[in-house]
Amino acid sequence: MKKIMNEPNQMVDQMLDGLVKAYPDQLKRLEDTTVLVRKELSPDKVGIVSGGGSGHEPAHAGYIGEGMLDAAVSGEVFTSPTPDQVFEAIKAVDQGKGVLLVIKNYTGDVMNFEMAAEMAEDEGINVEYVTVNDDVAVEDSTHTTGRRGVAGTIFVHKIAGAAAASGASLSEVKELAARVIQHTRSIGAALYPAEVPGSGNPGFELGDNEIEVGIGIHGEPGMEKTDLPSADQLSEKLLDEVMPELELKQGDEVALMVNGMGATPLMELYILNNHLHDLLTNKGITVADTKVGNFMTALEMAGASITILKLDNELKTQLQAPSKTIAFTI
Amino acid sequence: MKKIMNEPNQMVDQMLDGLVKAYPDQLKRLEDTTVLVRKELSPDKVGIVSGGGSGHEPAHAGYIGEGMLDAAVSGEVFTSPTPDQVFEAIKAVDQGKGVLLVIKNYTGDVMNFEMAAEMAEDEGINVEYVTVNDDVAVEDSTHTTGRRGVAGTIFVHKIAGAAAASGASLSEVKELAARVIQHTRSIGAALYPAEVPGSGNPGFELGDNEIEVGIGIHGEPGMEKTDLPSADQLSEKLLDEVMPELELKQGDEVALMVNGMGATPLMELYILNNHLHDLLTNKGITVADTKVGNFMTALEMAGASITILKLDNELKTQLQAPSKTIAFTI
Repeated sequence: MKKIMNEPNQMVDQMLDGLVKAYPDQLKRLEDTTVLVRKELSPDKVGIVSGGGSGHEPAHAGYIGEGMLDAAVSGEVFTSPTPDQVFEAIKAVDQGKGVLLVIKNYTGDVMNFEMAAEMAEDEGINVEYVTVNDDVAVEDSTHTTGRRGVAGTIFVHKIAGAAAASGASLSEVKELAARVIQHTRSIGAALYPAEVPGSGNPGFELGDNEIEVGIGIHGEPGMEKTDLPSADQLSEKLLDEVMPELELKQGDEVALMVNGMGATPLMELYILNNHLHDLLTNKGITVADTKVGNFMTALEMAGASITILKLDNELKTQLQAPSKTIAFTI
Repeated sequence: MKKIMNEPNQMVDQMLDGLVKAYPDQLKRLEDTTVLVRKELSPDKVGIVSGGGSGHEPAHAGYIGEGMLDAAVSGEVFTSPTPDQVFEAIKAVDQGKGVLLVIKNYTGDVMNFEMAAEMAEDEGINVEYVTVNDDVAVEDSTHTTGRRGVAGTIFVHKIAGAAAASGASLSEVKELAARVIQHTRSIGAALYPAEVPGSGNPGFELGDNEIEVGIGIHGEPGMEKTDLPSADQLSEKLLDEVMPELELKQGDEVALMVNGMGATPLMELYILNNHLHDLLTNKGITVADTKVGNFMTALEMAGASITILKLDNELKTQLQAPSKTIAFTI
């Protein structure tokens, strides 16, 4: 796989510098770390920190800013950041009201973020965390115990961030983040795999007319391989996996995210969205908010995931509250 | 090439419906047309209309909104919209102050938009147009007489849109748009080609370690094939093509756009940006504004283009003025 890069082991470092050079008014990098922090923190609020392996851009640095994250910690490609890096992020954003960590449910991430939380608690910083596990595809996997955290994480960033910006306490922000997680489910499918830079091998193999359903965001195996369906059939298949989990019924309101995995033309995502809206509407479910784009990617994987968040009034209000970040501005 | 679609000939129609369903508060579709219009037009301002073939998403519908476009007209994939469609867009956005058309320089687009302008003039609507030709790669091509219009078009949308929003007259908006065009240059390179849906053939062929420099946004041939360079070498090569055209000198201020062609991971674009900033800074040129992302794509082409806009005070002010669109919010 051809890539625009210098040495594979320089990629994360050069990406982070490239991000700061692009958005110097919004981001700064903590010296000698892989932590990006808001240039100017909003005073007197709970800090929100997320992060994980690189290769999911714009996640997570793209969500740093007003009404979302205060810092994002980057590991190597598809590799958890180390506890000391997360600890630096926590210290940088704590303003006395405590810090919430938003962790995607992968064994390495959970272990390292928990360890960082303990290090921070030892220094007297109040830290809580939530673990996002929205992917309905597989219980346990090569990377996880339990379900994986994928694009639904962005809804957690948004809503927890809005609550923090409105002055909520750490326990209130955590409670709301946990409610988002409880009401969020995702599933994805890939048409083409991604390849870790320098590895020389794609994450999985697919035939010329084959897709992988239930993929993760690190090239993990999914649930099944099938023949390439039409866009409408794919919408139906993905929705059928997600709907029962949320016990959606007529009259419910949801937010929908149609997420590109990295190499998917926006045109295809809009076509997917077109039928998804019809399917939901025909079931009497109102789509109160839609996001279509590349929010949680897996390098150059082609394909899409859908995420549904079952809304209540508070979740809807905070989802639609203003935010100003590189990748998510309302 | 596997794609998320139903029938190829339904793609544009279903994409447009999918767009409106995603953003119903911002967009509406004119019945029986391929024209998307702002849901609520700002009163008493010059209207701005752009468009072209589909397959360049988020261009152009993603730029409809406050401070940018009032309508976007979509043709079939990589095919100009017809004059009657453009005419409908003009009529929909005219509020008595006239309408500016922003045309990318392709023979079909220029002919059809000009014809639409004449139809509108016949109905008493004041119409002016500008033709964007920022691509330095080739003079004349399979699609053009003169240079092609590519990602620099977004700067024209932004600055003309901001001028219109601030109450400028049609001739003032046109003059400013023309100045943007005069000071904007782009060039791109592809690592992998794109394929028109249903065609079964990529736009060009590349070897396993080969790139095409000077590509257009329809799979047209570029200037040359070379071995895959490092990211830093690629930055240097692209900048070397663009710099002399703008006669940039120490002390100048520019805006820089690092644009993904559709399938390029954001990580790679940030890495490209990292070195581009260093190169410009080392020449004493200030990058006052940077945009990194997928702004003007060619379906699933992998690669990137760079666009440089040489700024003056007025251009800078209007570039940084607020805008609120799906793909470009400041």
